[in-house]
Amino acid sequence: MSIHSVKREQCHLAWDNSIPPVARIKSGESVSFDCLDASNGQIDPASTVATLRSLVFSRLDQVNGPIYVEDAQPGDTLQVDVLSIETAEWGWSALIPGFGLLADEFPEPELKLWKLDKEAGFAWFDEAKGIKIPLRPFAGEMGVARGVKGPYSTIPPYNTGGNIDTKHVTVGSTLFLPIEVEGALFSTGDGHAAQGDGEVCGTAIETPMKVTVRLTVRKDRPYTKTPHFSTKVSVNNEEYYCTTGVDADMKTATQAAVRYMIDFLCAEYGLGRTEAYMLCSVAGDLRLHEVVDMPNYVVGMMMPQSIFGGS
Amino acid sequence: MSIHSVKREQCHLAWDNSIPPVARIKSGESVSFDCLDASNGQIDPASTVATLRSLVFSRLDQVNGPIYVEDAQPGDTLQVDVLSIETAEWGWSALIPGFGLLADEFPEPELKLWKLDKEAGFAWFDEAKGIKIPLRPFAGEMGVARGVKGPYSTIPPYNTGGNIDTKHVTVGSTLFLPIEVEGALFSTGDGHAAQGDGEVCGTAIETPMKVTVRLTVRKDRPYTKTPHFSTKVSVNNEEYYCTTGVDADMKTATQAAVRYMIDFLCAEYGLGRTEAYMLCSVAGDLRLHEVVDMPNYVVGMMMPQSIFGGS
Repeated sequence: MSIHSVKREQCHLAWDNSIPPVARIKSGESVSFDCLDASNGQIDPASTVATLRSLVFSRLDQVNGPIYVEDAQPGDTLQVDVLSIETAEWGWSALIPGFGLLADEFPEPELKLWKLDKEAGFAWFDEAKGIKIPLRPFAGEMGVARGVKGPYSTIPPYNTGGNIDTKHVTVGSTLFLPIEVEGALFSTGDGHAAQGDGEVCGTAIETPMKVTVRLTVRKDRPYTKTPHFSTKVSVNNEEYYCTTGVDADMKTATQAAVRYMIDFLCAEYGLGRTEAYMLCSVAGDLRLHEVVDMPNYVVGMMMPQSIFGGS
Repeated sequence: MSIHSVKREQCHLAWDNSIPPVARIKSGESVSFDCLDASNGQIDPASTVATLRSLVFSRLDQVNGPIYVEDAQPGDTLQVDVLSIETAEWGWSALIPGFGLLADEFPEPELKLWKLDKEAGFAWFDEAKGIKIPLRPFAGEMGVARGVKGPYSTIPPYNTGGNIDTKHVTVGSTLFLPIEVEGALFSTGDGHAAQGDGEVCGTAIETPMKVTVRLTVRKDRPYTKTPHFSTKVSVNNEEYYCTTGVDADMKTATQAAVRYMIDFLCAEYGLGRTEAYMLCSVAGDLRLHEVVDMPNYVVGMMMPQSIFGGS
């Protein structure tokens, strides 16, 4: 299999299905992306809080691509296997006025720079206090072009993915995205070295990254209507399958996540809808993956895979 | 230390601070409660879906107690250490029309009876398909009397706890509740053998239980405004501290969970509010513990304890 590559400057600032692809690949081939951080290079290790005051917002959250995948048709599913992620040796977190879950309570800008100890696998949050964060890098943005015409901001996530900011889609995980246009037109960006479910202050440990994914067209998953993923929760190696809901209303997004898990359980395990709904209630975990990329929330229902195939 | 006991019939159907206590204990003493399931004995192993049609709703979700704890004053915190839980050997799950996250899509009643294999630690969901649920029992209801006068339904959770339906408060976990009346007036009930975050269909594996807790008055936690808890996530033994938000609006509850984690981090780890907010974003996980006990949601921010005290 050949590995294609996408350069830093091959990026775009909106989801728009009229943007010409930077490469065409066959289903099952891999692509490496070299991505600047989500500030599009406006923040670097020498930045101060003054840098935040001069941020050009229209340049934020660029994504690299798009990649045209042959044979991908609307209604298909794009399987994205995350093969490798290499972050930079530094990162940043910020409070950006007007952004974040508690924006009204934190009106002042703030910038924190991180040194990422990749060999040791963690970053000090506060060495004097002994607080350190394990590094679990992932791409905050992974998505395909929307079926609707026109440019759509890369800041909110959509049913087709994008800024899903879902910490669980790390190396070894697989993301499934519903394809809405011919060729799928996949792009990625927004390197995160670590993040909690929710990304509550509006930023993770933001960092440049090189990410390699394998893109495969799947014709056998008509129930993929929003991003789904399978992952191992890194601290315990427990395997999960997750369906998501993406909506401007948190409850509607939550209902969608559950509804799509029911669809999945019926399709893959031959359950009836009622028993699938009960199984969600007794074994599935609802998590708020992203609550700050307005106007859309991402809510996930994560089902532990250890409950299946037992004896 | 003496162990006090509360009998099955010593229960009540509303949070009401005028209900006389069934026992008075000293801070630090333990109490064992013998609790019927949340149907208050209306459902048993011989029940069918017809039983659901004749359920008397006003008898549901009884709690056993209340316990008066000496020295407990409004503004204090009640520490509840969960020492042991013994479920029955059977349980039930149901769809109750009008109840549950997808109530509009599941209008028909349904009842599922479970056999709980306590020795093996699991229950078959569907033996032919090989689907089984690990048993992780907890009390869905743990709470103290509200400061406001009058009877309040035991179905919604409140800032003082109650029907928090939080799967993480298992044996070995510690729950912290804000005390609003003299004596605290603690009650518990609603045995669950297993549940996912959210309890989406409206019921867990409901079961009678015997639960023993140690109740301790804490004068040193003025920041406890909603239920907090510390727990080990059972599948990996990772320790978490969790703050919750309880509100009729899911976003408001989410904001409260984060705000209270910030308060906690500032009080316990000497962080500034801004850095605490950032720490929540990069390391804290937002989970929807309960989304069906209307009108109130319970959202938790769970902070892994492994990030503290490192070297």
